[in-house]
Amino acid sequence: MPTCTNGRVLFNSIPEGYPEPGKTTVYDDSQVIDTAHVELNGGFLVKILELSIDPYMRGRMRDPSVESYASAFQIGQPLNSHGIGVVIRSENPEVKKGDHLHGLFEHQNYVVRKNLEGLQVVQNPNNLPWSTFIGALGMPGMTAYTGWKEFSHSKRGETAFVTAGAGPVGSMVIQLAKLDGLRVIASAGSEDKVKFLKEIGVDVAFNYKTCNTAEILAKEGPIDIYWDNVGGESLEAALDAANVDGRFIECGFISAYNDPNGVPVRNLANVFAKSLSLNGFIVTRLQDKYFDEFYKTIPPLVASGKIKHKEEVWEGLDKVGEFILAVQKGKNTAKAVIHVGDEE
Amino acid sequence: MPTCTNGRVLFNSIPEGYPEPGKTTVYDDSQVIDTAHVELNGGFLVKILELSIDPYMRGRMRDPSVESYASAFQIGQPLNSHGIGVVIRSENPEVKKGDHLHGLFEHQNYVVRKNLEGLQVVQNPNNLPWSTFIGALGMPGMTAYTGWKEFSHSKRGETAFVTAGAGPVGSMVIQLAKLDGLRVIASAGSEDKVKFLKEIGVDVAFNYKTCNTAEILAKEGPIDIYWDNVGGESLEAALDAANVDGRFIECGFISAYNDPNGVPVRNLANVFAKSLSLNGFIVTRLQDKYFDEFYKTIPPLVASGKIKHKEEVWEGLDKVGEFILAVQKGKNTAKAVIHVGDEE
Repeated sequence: MPTCTNGRVLFNSIPEGYPEPGKTTVYDDSQVIDTAHVELNGGFLVKILELSIDPYMRGRMRDPSVESYASAFQIGQPLNSHGIGVVIRSENPEVKKGDHLHGLFEHQNYVVRKNLEGLQVVQNPNNLPWSTFIGALGMPGMTAYTGWKEFSHSKRGETAFVTAGAGPVGSMVIQLAKLDGLRVIASAGSEDKVKFLKEIGVDVAFNYKTCNTAEILAKEGPIDIYWDNVGGESLEAALDAANVDGRFIECGFISAYNDPNGVPVRNLANVFAKSLSLNGFIVTRLQDKYFDEFYKTIPPLVASGKIKHKEEVWEGLDKVGEFILAVQKGKNTAKAVIHVGDEE
Repeated sequence: MPTCTNGRVLFNSIPEGYPEPGKTTVYDDSQVIDTAHVELNGGFLVKILELSIDPYMRGRMRDPSVESYASAFQIGQPLNSHGIGVVIRSENPEVKKGDHLHGLFEHQNYVVRKNLEGLQVVQNPNNLPWSTFIGALGMPGMTAYTGWKEFSHSKRGETAFVTAGAGPVGSMVIQLAKLDGLRVIASAGSEDKVKFLKEIGVDVAFNYKTCNTAEILAKEGPIDIYWDNVGGESLEAALDAANVDGRFIECGFISAYNDPNGVPVRNLANVFAKSLSLNGFIVTRLQDKYFDEFYKTIPPLVASGKIKHKEEVWEGLDKVGEFILAVQKGKNTAKAVIHVGDEE
């Protein structure tokens, strides 16, 4: 195999509001790699197949002096996110050619790694598409499972409200809630997404851009559980519509990611008046507790179609910047996947 | 005993912002009572000795069609709040002359009750002043104890932040935190209150009106536990200063009680980013779990002076309206008590 391009997506500048493709991130094709001969120094060479584009990546586009739950991207260096790669060559006995690996991968076509630190070899007995392991069976699915099991205290017959319900986290939460026997209200930002919500069993599905969330909840609530992916106005509506002893699971705050001033919530007095609990979490801090249970119970349900999931796939690393922006604006139709390359 | 005035404090109109003495509430002395001969119909006659003025009473000055955790006051009827009364005459075998009763009492000099519903006979083996049973040993003390035991998950060496620290709830929380071996940061709204904070063992005491809460917490934090009596800016500062896995106990929101638009909190994204828990509660929904434990452990500590408490006493029912306003504005110096009458 001759020398080929090793394309990379570099973090170029810290955005003020929404990230700008070509300015916040740039696609760089100046590096080449000789995949047959590149020095491995006892490590292995991975070809990246799929990369995940996630809402939380916006928070990593910050000044590295600001601490947060996920490390800041470094200016001039490739982005990284959850991905799937295949081992092409290996000098490390832990890994062999053809193994599929899951973990945080740089946004480039090929990477050399020394060892498995931060990576897992993916077992795929159900022969699911590899992208499933960065969506329904990856970090988003694990996020949904972990938060739901830890904090929902769900009881059959209760009502749950889920925002960003068509996303990979929200859609898994909805299906876990339905398996638990709950009535589910869920919102999303397009008619296509609302259609998907109905397909996965949502009882009251609505487009938050054309319907008023507070009015829907006033009519269809009260709610016992709120799975919050967005914060802001939806959170205010949920606080007003909550039952006494309601449980709020705070998973994300996409309404505020691109606003340096934050988005105000004015009715937090409901938290004490209604004896609510709000629990925030970051999946990586909690997932060990649920890891084995998740990979035992969920993959068969995904393989059989009992748990549905949906992906929107864009082709090529050069599309990463645009896809990040689309996800921040909620313009993607489903779990955002960059298809980087095919198996050889 | 001849006929005497049975003064009453009537709820007169629903306030927009702060309550207005003479308009929101009026003192009425038009009723008379013949305490020696008033018909008891099998019940008993109580002379009110002490009444509690609490921040939460503002929430009861609302349109009764709005549901909330505490019932709305009725226009034209007396206010009611926690109080202590002494039985003057009784035809009910459960209660005898000289018994002291604790419970929600109407704001008037004398009341006739049929039975003990909503009231408890107070045991006072330590001969504490009766007002103690509406403060440190009453609803505020029980609020502090219940919330702290249920939600703080305190660990020796951690740091807690308490707002409205000189009040009856805050000062009990502080002393429970010190008993648990915590470092305590606490704020109050006057130099006298700050002095009291130091007397009860606060490590970092400050006046939130002359110091910037966010700056103090940036220097003296991070914090593991936040006991929130106020909401608003203090809550924002605490969210920014919280450690990962911090516990926020949401007890009150006085910053917002007098603002019909609510007070905005802009940085709730910290809840998920730092894996925080926020637990709101209303003492009456939770106190049964801790009632016996509280009355076994706390009264001896109060009697011995190991737990300190402070009261500001105003004389006479005609002062209720002004005292309610002072409490809403934080102008009281300690637990607000109306001394209604003396034992005969």
